[in-house]
Amino acid sequence: MTNPPVLAEVWRGDLLESQHRGHAVIVTASGDIVEQWGDPAKLIYPRSSAKMLQALPLLESGAAQANRLESHHHALACASHNGAEIHTAPVAEWISALGLRESDLRCGPQVPDDAPARHALRAQGTPPCQLHNNCSGKHAGFLTLGQHLGAGPEYNDPEHPVQAAVRAAFEDMTGEISPGYGIDGCSAPNFSCTLKGLAVAMAKMATPESLQGSRRAAAEALVQAMIAHPLLVAGEGRACSELMAACGGRAAVKTGAEGVFVAILPEHKLGIALKIEDGTTRASEAAMAALLVRLGLLERDHPAAERRMKRPVMNRRDILTGHIRAAELLLSP
Amino acid sequence: MTNPPVLAEVWRGDLLESQHRGHAVIVTASGDIVEQWGDPAKLIYPRSSAKMLQALPLLESGAAQANRLESHHHALACASHNGAEIHTAPVAEWISALGLRESDLRCGPQVPDDAPARHALRAQGTPPCQLHNNCSGKHAGFLTLGQHLGAGPEYNDPEHPVQAAVRAAFEDMTGEISPGYGIDGCSAPNFSCTLKGLAVAMAKMATPESLQGSRRAAAEALVQAMIAHPLLVAGEGRACSELMAACGGRAAVKTGAEGVFVAILPEHKLGIALKIEDGTTRASEAAMAALLVRLGLLERDHPAAERRMKRPVMNRRDILTGHIRAAELLLSP
Repeated sequence: MTNPPVLAEVWRGDLLESQHRGHAVIVTASGDIVEQWGDPAKLIYPRSSAKMLQALPLLESGAAQANRLESHHHALACASHNGAEIHTAPVAEWISALGLRESDLRCGPQVPDDAPARHALRAQGTPPCQLHNNCSGKHAGFLTLGQHLGAGPEYNDPEHPVQAAVRAAFEDMTGEISPGYGIDGCSAPNFSCTLKGLAVAMAKMATPESLQGSRRAAAEALVQAMIAHPLLVAGEGRACSELMAACGGRAAVKTGAEGVFVAILPEHKLGIALKIEDGTTRASEAAMAALLVRLGLLERDHPAAERRMKRPVMNRRDILTGHIRAAELLLSP
Repeated sequence: MTNPPVLAEVWRGDLLESQHRGHAVIVTASGDIVEQWGDPAKLIYPRSSAKMLQALPLLESGAAQANRLESHHHALACASHNGAEIHTAPVAEWISALGLRESDLRCGPQVPDDAPARHALRAQGTPPCQLHNNCSGKHAGFLTLGQHLGAGPEYNDPEHPVQAAVRAAFEDMTGEISPGYGIDGCSAPNFSCTLKGLAVAMAKMATPESLQGSRRAAAEALVQAMIAHPLLVAGEGRACSELMAACGGRAAVKTGAEGVFVAILPEHKLGIALKIEDGTTRASEAAMAALLVRLGLLERDHPAAERRMKRPVMNRRDILTGHIRAAELLLSP
């Protein structure tokens, strides 16, 4: 049994109350490992951290261009969003422009994380719909690609042309034959790969010049869209949005459920992937912030870095009880 | 660095997506270890799993009797409740009978976990109050003891006579001098101890005949109250309530934040304490259910056991995507 190192710590008073182990790897597009913690060969589900890979066929196929999708659509296709008005309104418009309806989505409804959106639904007595699902942009992309391919409505079927195209792009970018898939929270298949494979895919996204044909432009457009629209990729108060904004265009980062986080670093021509063994987001966010600091993309004392790397834990009377911290080993040489 | 064993697994499809390591120990009241996983000497905060120990001085001092507290009050003093009407109404009455008000509590407000209570507050446009705090019963107990002792209102102060009495009982039951405390979510001090110390305290609760004087009756009354009122100790759908009900009076169990769970087993004259290293409740619940099965308190196929030991994970379209499972090592001989 491998014993991955502790990447994040939870302190209460002067006692280490809980700790989170994990695997992390920094690689080049050609697969050279620059740094590693734990086991880069660990087989994982990337979950939502793979959304920019799942969006590649949308652009490569010409479907995006044929439907005049713009940068903000690309960002939404890569998003795990809060279901705020800024997310749901453009997705609704997008689906409508396809001549389709909310009921054509296959992601399921979700109570939005965005508080104003949640309060508005409550005030209206309206249940959340599929547009509020954090993956609705990705699914709008799937609908767009499916329509462009003349394929049927059940685009989540792993044998559907949309998912076949996603799998092909995913395997090509990771450089691995995926051994299988799980069903994601939004019902799309989520193909497994090694942590290193995921990091390599991110390094390739970071270096579109290493890619051929239509993929080069697709990768470039998606990364630029994420960087240009940090709030569309996640939302107010979210790690992805805050870290991307803080990096000032030098990094595209994306969280995934169960403790996954990736980074695309065009200047460095590197990709990062990390997985917290126990699947906890508080730890994956702390670890990713620390790696961005390690690579010089963020000052350690930048509020966006500090907020994740030494996050205060307040109790119900707003008393500071402790901190969630990135492990020092992610910062030390 | 110790590497505790995996106690719970999270599967998606046929891939182990996440896993939770932890420490667990089963002991007698005299401190003999019957079984152990990981490190029984691990220093932890028991968090809410120590509530029955924090309630001992309330009964031992005569404060409970002087205020005619009954079994349901005792159960509420040990509770991490859902803030349902069945919890908040008797706590409100209790505080009122002391001649005190909700504002005399020092636990802070909390949005209730109980859905009907939450909806009722929303419909009324009323914010949650301190009665909804999952610890309000414990704090009503603190107020009662404080009043009985003629002490001041700031009963969360670690030097306050209430907390001095709690600390003395805690140290006596664990058989350890606590090296310190953290501030809990409800602002009370939470004294640290080893995992084994916590288990020993539970074994002593399980064998009141091993205790002297007023402590004997206090321990017996608290354990009987927990067993008699499983729904008061937690609430509808909660692991503590379901597992206690399923054990049919043969076990009192209690969860604590950051992955702690304890059991008091009067028939077996044993105590259990476990701590998930990463602090995750889905794992502590699975592990505790498995240990109750291991000790013959619960059939493996009992719905209450299965629901925690092989908990289905459903997605937003109600498709089964995987399971949260107790590790087999907790069940194998």
